[in-house]
Amino acid sequence: MKEKGLLVVISGPSGTGKGTICKALLEKNDFWLSVSATTRNPRAGEVDGVNYYFLNKEEFKNKIDSKDFLEYAEVYGNYYGTPKSNVLAAIDNGKDVVLEIDIQGALRVKESYPEGVFIFILPPSMEELKKRIINRGSETNESLMTRFKAAYKEINYVSKYNYAVVNDTVKEAVKKIESIITAERCRVDRVKENILDSKEGIIHEQLYD
Amino acid sequence: MKEKGLLVVISGPSGTGKGTICKALLEKNDFWLSVSATTRNPRAGEVDGVNYYFLNKEEFKNKIDSKDFLEYAEVYGNYYGTPKSNVLAAIDNGKDVVLEIDIQGALRVKESYPEGVFIFILPPSMEELKKRIINRGSETNESLMTRFKAAYKEINYVSKYNYAVVNDTVKEAVKKIESIITAERCRVDRVKENILDSKEGIIHEQLYD
Repeated sequence: MKEKGLLVVISGPSGTGKGTICKALLEKNDFWLSVSATTRNPRAGEVDGVNYYFLNKEEFKNKIDSKDFLEYAEVYGNYYGTPKSNVLAAIDNGKDVVLEIDIQGALRVKESYPEGVFIFILPPSMEELKKRIINRGSETNESLMTRFKAAYKEINYVSKYNYAVVNDTVKEAVKKIESIITAERCRVDRVKENILDSKEGIIHEQLYD
Repeated sequence: MKEKGLLVVISGPSGTGKGTICKALLEKNDFWLSVSATTRNPRAGEVDGVNYYFLNKEEFKNKIDSKDFLEYAEVYGNYYGTPKSNVLAAIDNGKDVVLEIDIQGALRVKESYPEGVFIFILPPSMEELKKRIINRGSETNESLMTRFKAAYKEINYVSKYNYAVVNDTVKEAVKKIESIITAERCRVDRVKENILDSKEGIIHEQLYD
């Protein structure tokens, strides 16, 4: 029996640096990045199948009807979703799939694929989170405070996840995520069948030779 | 709130190399090795407090009565046990404690300390396990076969553990155990209280400054 890959969901409040962490993680490892589908228009430089799968609304709705999303949502009139069939095909093929997604999306993925590995990225401190949100710029003081308060509230969702990784430095956070993936591959829940199967296969050849 | 250390229990059938793995693990890391207590006589070169705590039967029984063992067993008239108070003190102090122990012992530790991390060491193959048991020498063919069959049966206990690590090479097995320890330190079940506590501490200073 071939070992299945893992679905690794990396999530957390905005401003915690999960995008940077995912990029560094994928540069170092042979993981498969899940690409989202959207009905919004491509921005300059965005490539279909790389940044997003760009679909029209009819195509998107057909995919909803045929249940081909791990999760989807409508945001300001546009749809965003995680296509299911590609992800499951990669996993069945033994590939680990990384999915970077916001908290609401991650919780919906957990409903449809609870055996995923759900990792919550935490800022080193709330002070640091505030700095990061401010450094993104282009926002009024009021909207900054709204976003900071939202991020603060969102931290409570950590209890729905399997792991929490503090983003002190990208390098350390990536190392922790790599360790989590290695550890999850050793989890008895995941490998028990394989161990006991291979044991059965061997006993007849070797115990009585 | 200070983060507690982990109790890492390394176990498996005899001949899988768990002793070698533990030694290599402890050479590389600042872990605390749990030393067993026994009523058997010290062998040449064995040091009290290093190889074992050597106790007389009365001392051992007093410790049983005061429930100062995570587990204990009588083997051929001698007692062996894992002293509890030292282990728990180290864990409360934030130290990770490594305990190398046979399967029966590990299952008893799991009863008294279920929040431990239980790692089962597997041989690369049953063929390799047989070779290793044979290489230990000094046994008749019959007793070799008895030991091999026992080891084979013991592999079924893997399902009682959290993790299974195949001992292909000591270096790789040690790396996997280090990853498991890193990952366990990120488990939300273990760190949730700390995250939410520290968040509460920070909000009053920082959200309204």
